[in-house]
Amino acid sequence: MSAISNDTICALSTANGMGAIAMIRVSGAQALEITSKIFSKDLTLVPSHTAHFGTIRNAEEILDEVVVTVFHAGKSFTGEPTTEIACHGSVFIQRELLNLLLTSGCRMAEPGEFTMRAFFNGRMDLSQAEAIADLIHSDSKKVHQIAMNQMRGGYSDHIADLKQQLMNFASLIELELDFSEEDVEFASRTELYALLEQLDKRLTQLTESFAFGNALKNGIQTVIAGRPNAGKSTLLNALLNEERAIVSEIAGTTRDTIQELLIIDGVQFKFIDTAGIREASDEIERIGVERTLTEVGRSRVLLYVFDQNELSADEVLEDLAKLERDGLDVIVVANKADLADKYAALQLVTERYTTVFISAKQKDGIDALKTALLSSIGEGFSEMDTIVVNARHYDAFSKALADIQNVRQGLDSGIPGDLLAMDIRSAIRNLASITGEISTDDLLGNIFANFCIGK
Amino acid sequence: MSAISNDTICALSTANGMGAIAMIRVSGAQALEITSKIFSKDLTLVPSHTAHFGTIRNAEEILDEVVVTVFHAGKSFTGEPTTEIACHGSVFIQRELLNLLLTSGCRMAEPGEFTMRAFFNGRMDLSQAEAIADLIHSDSKKVHQIAMNQMRGGYSDHIADLKQQLMNFASLIELELDFSEEDVEFASRTELYALLEQLDKRLTQLTESFAFGNALKNGIQTVIAGRPNAGKSTLLNALLNEERAIVSEIAGTTRDTIQELLIIDGVQFKFIDTAGIREASDEIERIGVERTLTEVGRSRVLLYVFDQNELSADEVLEDLAKLERDGLDVIVVANKADLADKYAALQLVTERYTTVFISAKQKDGIDALKTALLSSIGEGFSEMDTIVVNARHYDAFSKALADIQNVRQGLDSGIPGDLLAMDIRSAIRNLASITGEISTDDLLGNIFANFCIGK
Repeated sequence: MSAISNDTICALSTANGMGAIAMIRVSGAQALEITSKIFSKDLTLVPSHTAHFGTIRNAEEILDEVVVTVFHAGKSFTGEPTTEIACHGSVFIQRELLNLLLTSGCRMAEPGEFTMRAFFNGRMDLSQAEAIADLIHSDSKKVHQIAMNQMRGGYSDHIADLKQQLMNFASLIELELDFSEEDVEFASRTELYALLEQLDKRLTQLTESFAFGNALKNGIQTVIAGRPNAGKSTLLNALLNEERAIVSEIAGTTRDTIQELLIIDGVQFKFIDTAGIREASDEIERIGVERTLTEVGRSRVLLYVFDQNELSADEVLEDLAKLERDGLDVIVVANKADLADKYAALQLVTERYTTVFISAKQKDGIDALKTALLSSIGEGFSEMDTIVVNARHYDAFSKALADIQNVRQGLDSGIPGDLLAMDIRSAIRNLASITGEISTDDLLGNIFANFCIGK
Repeated sequence: MSAISNDTICALSTANGMGAIAMIRVSGAQALEITSKIFSKDLTLVPSHTAHFGTIRNAEEILDEVVVTVFHAGKSFTGEPTTEIACHGSVFIQRELLNLLLTSGCRMAEPGEFTMRAFFNGRMDLSQAEAIADLIHSDSKKVHQIAMNQMRGGYSDHIADLKQQLMNFASLIELELDFSEEDVEFASRTELYALLEQLDKRLTQLTESFAFGNALKNGIQTVIAGRPNAGKSTLLNALLNEERAIVSEIAGTTRDTIQELLIIDGVQFKFIDTAGIREASDEIERIGVERTLTEVGRSRVLLYVFDQNELSADEVLEDLAKLERDGLDVIVVANKADLADKYAALQLVTERYTTVFISAKQKDGIDALKTALLSSIGEGFSEMDTIVVNARHYDAFSKALADIQNVRQGLDSGIPGDLLAMDIRSAIRNLASITGEISTDDLLGNIFANFCIGK
């Protein structure tokens, strides 16, 4: 898919399959003329944002009774003249109506082509366009909020702000450069360092948010581990039972591990119940432990479950020493609180780990566990932070951060201002690539090819 | 579902699942007020048939950017004030938007409730409402055309016309009744008989069309039978290869029979390739023949295939004698015309059956076979005929026909005019039940419960 073309495109924009109503979108210079050819009313002179009831005809035959909504150039999603045809939702009508449009002068839209046109026509920047795909794929509140903020330009504002700071910095450096033979330092080093420090901090925060954003987007992988009869499965059931309506099993999981999805307060968790350290025989136990460790390695959160009546604090710490690793949030779940509450005896554990006392069987303490899960993953990110969920953006922010770190090293080692300016401009270019001020056909092709058709 | 309620209903009207865009419809007295509560613009005073871009808010949070189209009472599908909210098509947004509407004063629509309201508000009669469900489920042109004609009132006009004739008849009879003591016959017996004859003929045609309409709706079951190596499978492949794009295998068919769908000129055929008279061993052959006969019993069309180089006319007639039955259209397919054309030798066959000479291997004669298939099923029904596809209508027409036949018998046996009038009125009531002039809550509940939600 290369630069924008002038032709008129059409596609089914609603979900595939039969519905009461389906909507086919037509966009391009000839959208009103082409739609008028097959519609019972001339739409070329009607006002924008008006809806018109009438029939779609294929030669002599009436294909359907529809409502066509007309949007004028500059006032539509794409920025081009657009019609949206709401027809009856049979697969037959959808197919025939698209065929009619194709034979009347439209071309079938490529994936994401409506959004690409919106981008080319300046209706949104590239990161906003990308947010639309994320928005459509969002299945939990948190991911939805991030995509919505990005689509509405909050993210772009953040980038524009960073870019402005970089440009201020660049002009200070370049001013110095112009007068370099006079050995004047217009930009105070202290000021430059302070600015760099701030940029470094913000870019670091953005790149670090990606691990969180990416986990959010794909579901927070949470492994449940523990010794036999610790109550791992009962715990999983207790968690899931609370919100049965939005629980679903992931198809195609292996028989060795059970994966369940659960949305807690708008955040999607993917729970993995490991075969664990569960079998009695040594050989099988070895394999079980290996598998558990592999799952732990892939996870962001570990729920370590134990039976308070069985294990001492030392035994718990011993298990945790085997499971712990960098970047893994550990929540210790002291189960069977219905039988005995050994809070005091577990002081060695509670002073090192977030510990929740529950009775999986009685469903006591499940809310506290959910709260612990939510705080474990949200650590360091508040509601107000900009979260990076897009790998391309992460890559660009990382490069910009490296540029900034080069600048700082350059300042430290006293390299000439024109070399510093190069790195600054590279950082600006990297930020500009996120919003698409700088882009290539290949890049755009890759981005929009991942959209669905009709968007 | 009982008589119409006053509340405002909402539902997803587009197909289930994720799409670029989804559409949620709100209908009822408070539709504009409720939508305005969650939308960024007051819609209560905007003109009908206008589209408005804005945001949907859930308290402080923006749920989505949407386009709301407003339809005023008397100008909408249901006849009630209506809004259609086109939102981004994530499942999350669909669900949250519906939740927002529910907490803002809407009730979730029951299946078919929008259409039921359209019926109650006089926007369409009952047979038109039923046609909408048929239209949405149509997957071939012919069924689509029948549903479209019915939705647009062609069918209702036909019924109105029949009813008018019955009423004219009734008034003649009733006039006679008023003067019965004077022994005057105002209605000429000849005229009455002629009218009855005509009504009988039209009602018979309508009831007979149901077998055709029902077969069309479900696909014309066509069994392919013949001796081993007659080329049955090659024939099926030749038929299917021609239109590979619209062929699909029906899931869940038994391994004994192969079922394939093929749409020929807008009519859907369901081909069944029987295990047939195919096995050598006697016991197995017996089972094979039994199965073939069972399939033949269920089918409307038989394609009997034989190899022109192997069978004589007598052998063909012998096979056909076993397979033939009432109501089955037989097409004889003389295969392997590439090897020998024995037209003359087959005179005994061709003079009794529609016979097509083909070479399945060379794909010769396939078009002629398709034409034969189309004429076999359409026999007696022209493009202009009203076709009954609905079992409820078939039932009502059958009852009206019985009433008319009672009237005729009554006239023959000279029963009093008031008894004749009762039968006439019964026929009128039966016709009126089709268009819903006479209906019960139970009946309506049954009809609309089979609709999808959102329609």
